[in-house]
Amino acid sequence: MKRSVFFVSDGTGITAETLGRSLLAQFDTVQFDESAIPYVDTEDKARSLVQQINKVAEDDGVRPIIIDTIVNRQVRDIIATANAFMMDVFETYLGKLETELCAAPTTVVGKTHSIINNEAYGVRIDAVHFALDNDDGARTRHYDKADIILTGVSRSGKTPTSLYMALQFGVHVGNYPLTEDDFDDLRLPGALKEHKRKLFGLTIDPERLCAIRHERKANSRYASIQQCEIEIRAAEALFNKEGIPYINTTHLSIEEISTRILAQAGIKRRLV
Amino acid sequence: MKRSVFFVSDGTGITAETLGRSLLAQFDTVQFDESAIPYVDTEDKARSLVQQINKVAEDDGVRPIIIDTIVNRQVRDIIATANAFMMDVFETYLGKLETELCAAPTTVVGKTHSIINNEAYGVRIDAVHFALDNDDGARTRHYDKADIILTGVSRSGKTPTSLYMALQFGVHVGNYPLTEDDFDDLRLPGALKEHKRKLFGLTIDPERLCAIRHERKANSRYASIQQCEIEIRAAEALFNKEGIPYINTTHLSIEEISTRILAQAGIKRRLV
Repeated sequence: MKRSVFFVSDGTGITAETLGRSLLAQFDTVQFDESAIPYVDTEDKARSLVQQINKVAEDDGVRPIIIDTIVNRQVRDIIATANAFMMDVFETYLGKLETELCAAPTTVVGKTHSIINNEAYGVRIDAVHFALDNDDGARTRHYDKADIILTGVSRSGKTPTSLYMALQFGVHVGNYPLTEDDFDDLRLPGALKEHKRKLFGLTIDPERLCAIRHERKANSRYASIQQCEIEIRAAEALFNKEGIPYINTTHLSIEEISTRILAQAGIKRRLV
Repeated sequence: MKRSVFFVSDGTGITAETLGRSLLAQFDTVQFDESAIPYVDTEDKARSLVQQINKVAEDDGVRPIIIDTIVNRQVRDIIATANAFMMDVFETYLGKLETELCAAPTTVVGKTHSIINNEAYGVRIDAVHFALDNDDGARTRHYDKADIILTGVSRSGKTPTSLYMALQFGVHVGNYPLTEDDFDDLRLPGALKEHKRKLFGLTIDPERLCAIRHERKANSRYASIQQCEIEIRAAEALFNKEGIPYINTTHLSIEEISTRILAQAGIKRRLV
């Protein structure tokens, strides 16, 4: 049976959505129809959402699930009148924390994701620009300022990983593509040699790489399974020979690749 | 008083951390010392973490707070022996959801952020490469495939926002910088005219822009408050004249800029 789910917040809704998806992922026999509803920050918006949810309840023949992080008490009380099963995050935890901390919550909307911390903003912007400037081996002269340098064959996931790490952790990530030239003598490219300690390799199953490359250049030599196999075998041989830690990205999301690398390489975040 | 906080998970820890920071942000009179501890996925790691937490409890003179999303029961039971105030997310909610859904949770570790969904992975990668290929007005011929085109003066936040939107929502974002040339006659650049409906403007307070630009090119004309004021005034005049919706990013985080634009522009996510 399909269950409709609403992630509701008077802020960005990022917390409600992250928590909600994480919980729902534990029930893989149920089919969920998920909607993110951020910025429900007035009583009017709340009433209109209640109508929408009640309509869905009627259509589905079963009450929807609401997972919410609504700080405003009045707004929350209105949402609570919907014909739905409501899991309210702040209600669940704030009271407990209040007791433990002997401090009253400020109950200001959108504290986490809206209050600008100028220093943190600068750290993220710098990290994003560092990743862009040092993407795909474009430039290597700033590698001394890199926290880590990702390396691997084309489309092994270097660029999205480096951007995610920049945005999420503020770390300075360079990335350098390994190409056939580098495999001839199985030696590290000159630009990487002096930064060997900072290197982290990405590898991927040849079948998956082949599929990804086909999306980009169908039926090319570049995308052929033979070529993918040769490159991956050589890249892994190089990582092993040089003692470079590496991770197989085939079954991992970008979040997981990034957090694993951070943990394994023992890199300190610049964003806390 | 300082309170130490541990975000603990047997997966990436993204959920524990997102939820935890959101809750703690409500207590701004308390100073928190936060640590993210992902991948606590064996009983040995759990025992060693308990020792670490107990040591911190002793040093602080007050028990630390644990906010955890540990799926593995054995691991969780060990963590629960620490001298700490523990808020366990799965324990709090899974039972309630189980009753509501009439379904048993699978209790598989790291469901949310680790199980690879090949289609979703492809959507994100495509979106990231779209953002990169269409960054900073580099190319405009793919604007017909863009879901949205951000525009604004240099350092108003276009690039990090477009990358965040790509990674988080999978949407195709182009971005185009407004420069002095565009302000002379207060007309849209030719490349943008035919895509006017897709445009979304970013603006920022001149003082903040000045500070950001000084970080990049100290004491330049580019970073001067006069120049920042002229550019911002002209950009806003252009947005108003052309009826382009825009958002002031000064007090917003990248998450909030992105989710607000998505909501205001009514863009459908490509990633669900």
